[in-house]
Amino acid sequence: MEKVVIIGLGLMGGSIARDLKKLGNYHICGIDQNKTHAQEALQLGWVDDLVSIDKVADNHWVILAVPVNYLPSLAIEVLDRIHKDTIVFDMGSIKNPLCNAVKNHPNRSQLVAVHPIAGTENSGPSAAIHHLFKKKLTIICEPTSSCPQKLEKTIQLWKSLGARIHFMDAVAHDKHLAYVSHLSHISSFMLGKTVLEIEKDERQIFNLAGSGFESTVRLAKSAPPTWAPIFLENHENILQSLDEYIENLQQFRTLIFQQDEQQLSAIMYQCNHVGEILAGIALNNHQEP
Amino acid sequence: MEKVVIIGLGLMGGSIARDLKKLGNYHICGIDQNKTHAQEALQLGWVDDLVSIDKVADNHWVILAVPVNYLPSLAIEVLDRIHKDTIVFDMGSIKNPLCNAVKNHPNRSQLVAVHPIAGTENSGPSAAIHHLFKKKLTIICEPTSSCPQKLEKTIQLWKSLGARIHFMDAVAHDKHLAYVSHLSHISSFMLGKTVLEIEKDERQIFNLAGSGFESTVRLAKSAPPTWAPIFLENHENILQSLDEYIENLQQFRTLIFQQDEQQLSAIMYQCNHVGEILAGIALNNHQEP
Repeated sequence: MEKVVIIGLGLMGGSIARDLKKLGNYHICGIDQNKTHAQEALQLGWVDDLVSIDKVADNHWVILAVPVNYLPSLAIEVLDRIHKDTIVFDMGSIKNPLCNAVKNHPNRSQLVAVHPIAGTENSGPSAAIHHLFKKKLTIICEPTSSCPQKLEKTIQLWKSLGARIHFMDAVAHDKHLAYVSHLSHISSFMLGKTVLEIEKDERQIFNLAGSGFESTVRLAKSAPPTWAPIFLENHENILQSLDEYIENLQQFRTLIFQQDEQQLSAIMYQCNHVGEILAGIALNNHQEP
Repeated sequence: MEKVVIIGLGLMGGSIARDLKKLGNYHICGIDQNKTHAQEALQLGWVDDLVSIDKVADNHWVILAVPVNYLPSLAIEVLDRIHKDTIVFDMGSIKNPLCNAVKNHPNRSQLVAVHPIAGTENSGPSAAIHHLFKKKLTIICEPTSSCPQKLEKTIQLWKSLGARIHFMDAVAHDKHLAYVSHLSHISSFMLGKTVLEIEKDERQIFNLAGSGFESTVRLAKSAPPTWAPIFLENHENILQSLDEYIENLQQFRTLIFQQDEQQLSAIMYQCNHVGEILAGIALNNHQEP
């Protein structure tokens, strides 16, 4: 029986707890400052016990599943306290602030920086999903900074959850994620805001939201305590991606204003290429077990 | 056996052909300038015959399923030619240019202006979907301009396809659709463009496109020959919605730049309200047969 403590029992912490529990070989303790979330996770059976932070030394695994703004200081606190055999990994959506913060810590090699690209727009332990990580790309940043045996055990744990592992530089990770994930969330939040502002009569949204709106606005349901820290911690990359997005919208606006059908169509045909790439993703997800 | 001619055999024309055929009581002829689409629709069995425009007089029903920029002139040409018992309806995403164009036509009362809020990002007759209109909101604009008996028969036909009918003013329709549907498409096209521009190495998109990106960028696969005309014909409403969207993005950008976590969170909590509205839609779709 391996002992695990999970700090942060939201969607991500709750989902990994749920999956590890199902695998059978883990005794799982949970920590959450939010007492409602902690009690929920216990009642739902995702964790066996609730403990306090001074109990982390005692475990084979410490999993950090808190919002990204708490990660760097929490990682240092945990690395300060742990036994030499303990493995620590996080599940944060940005990696460079964390990797920078622990860079010179004497126990740096006991930490593995992990980002499973998985989630939903829902939050809290009751939103935890069985098999959330199955077939999902899971990125490990700066693998050479982790102890090889601890890295290998972490990879095995994630593979047992069904994840596909990919290594990446932390700086490159944060930049790519700004474009591919964080910008999508901002675009969706602002689309929701724009529609809510004009459609004072909600029945109109209710009635007219047919094809298209639901999928583009789905991410506007995402949890602010998760996403505000991501936008702030990764602000340099996000501001750059957002500026390019706004510039593209303004150019498209100009073409509509000028009634330039030919140029509008040419740009849309370029964008259609995204479809082929996504079809490749679907194929890849289908092929890899 | 009622005789139907469908002009435009793309996703929308193909889908209604397919559903009517299944109902059994219709002989369906098709017209499409695109010979590949016409032949495909014939081979797939969505239509019984291909005919030319001078054969429209001969039918009980004429269905206009062409891009919105062709609709006004085509509607006039068809109304000029038809028998007094023929019913004409269109399936266009914007309604005011059409309603304006036919306003003073002597046969105006034979036309019903219909917009089924249904579709996918795919195009052509091979993308036609059985039951595409089932449980979907279908808007009829300016119903009092149509002959009551012809309006009633049109409503019955759409109900036989499973649609839910809603009446609306054409000007209001075009404005609401700009916000709820057309803006979603532009936001998605430009998100695809921004990501394609930065991620020159497509493997990165391929690898990193996890939760979030696929749903927000799905509409970027939509067909330019359908959407360029919609953006141009509805340009006044779309420019207004686009300006408000860009303004919201710029305000959000400023808050990220100023590291104003409190205000960012407050705005995101407002946007979360979209989730409750969409949950209402899902419930409604579930309840109404």
